[in-house]
Amino acid sequence: MEILKKRIIDEGIIISDSIIKVDSFLNHKIDPLLMEEIASEFCNRFSDKSFNKIVTVESSGIAPAVLTGLKLKIPVIFAKKAKPSTMGSFLSARVHSFTKDKDYNIFISDGLISKGDRVLIIDDFLAHGSATRGLISIVEQCGAKVDGIGIIIEKGFQNGGSILRGLGYRIESLAIIEKISQNEIRFKD
Amino acid sequence: MEILKKRIIDEGIIISDSIIKVDSFLNHKIDPLLMEEIASEFCNRFSDKSFNKIVTVESSGIAPAVLTGLKLKIPVIFAKKAKPSTMGSFLSARVHSFTKDKDYNIFISDGLISKGDRVLIIDDFLAHGSATRGLISIVEQCGAKVDGIGIIIEKGFQNGGSILRGLGYRIESLAIIEKISQNEIRFKD
Repeated sequence: MEILKKRIIDEGIIISDSIIKVDSFLNHKIDPLLMEEIASEFCNRFSDKSFNKIVTVESSGIAPAVLTGLKLKIPVIFAKKAKPSTMGSFLSARVHSFTKDKDYNIFISDGLISKGDRVLIIDDFLAHGSATRGLISIVEQCGAKVDGIGIIIEKGFQNGGSILRGLGYRIESLAIIEKISQNEIRFKD
Repeated sequence: MEILKKRIIDEGIIISDSIIKVDSFLNHKIDPLLMEEIASEFCNRFSDKSFNKIVTVESSGIAPAVLTGLKLKIPVIFAKKAKPSTMGSFLSARVHSFTKDKDYNIFISDGLISKGDRVLIIDDFLAHGSATRGLISIVEQCGAKVDGIGIIIEKGFQNGGSILRGLGYRIESLAIIEKISQNEIRFKD
């Protein structure tokens, strides 16, 4: 997705050879017009699929997930990173953040995902794939099927994408970064 | 907003005389079509204003804020409840959650809100108003103006709305709850 790659190059801030900051349009300040184009691109790439729910994780996944949900006219469920006191029975999964070097749990209330659901998982980043695997685990604990995974930025130099593709999941990443160096972000193809 | 009130009555779960759970369309599972109607309603109610930025706080404010931002073609900034390690200089405010009975800080990176910005604050709930006051504080620390506050559900029996209106802020709440009792949610007018 060329317009996305251009924004990453123009506005991404290289923090290290594995971390870029895209706070000016994706993770902190959000450009809703770009998010709408991202949602359209997810719909195009998955036009052969018939999802009935989108699942993401708070917070940066919410904007692209809701705009995609609006186009597909299907609900969006976002996993929470802390269990609210008002949450009754729930499903959870353990996630490791390599950026923050810590483990945390993600939670989805029981009953929001049902057996037979055809789920599109959407997230902003795919790197080692821990958060995505956590979402897959919860969806599958519910007896539902992960029918597609839509990622805005995949770090192709980390192994999350290859592991998940190897397990048979269909992943569509709108920009795959092959290498981050001191002064360059290089994309795959 | 009648369609919103109907959803609150039909799907809201009364937890106590001050807490309702609206996880089935707003806070956990999101109905993107309802969110779009909410965004349209915010645009109608503030049609006399000319905002150039929307500010909200993660996570439940993001969906309505992004859909409103899309209609107004302006960016959305969401305050974070934890400071990422990659965040440089920032502005912050202390917020008290009465539901969780604890204090936390919210953070916005320096430079995302500028002097002269005309800001619309959007959030899902207004109760005691602590989170909203935190957002106002950050916007005003930046030298920007809070030109409107759009709230999906206001708890009219708590004092956040009256305090903020008393301070001169324009608040548009799409549903104002007057009273929650064991088996009834009563709205103002």
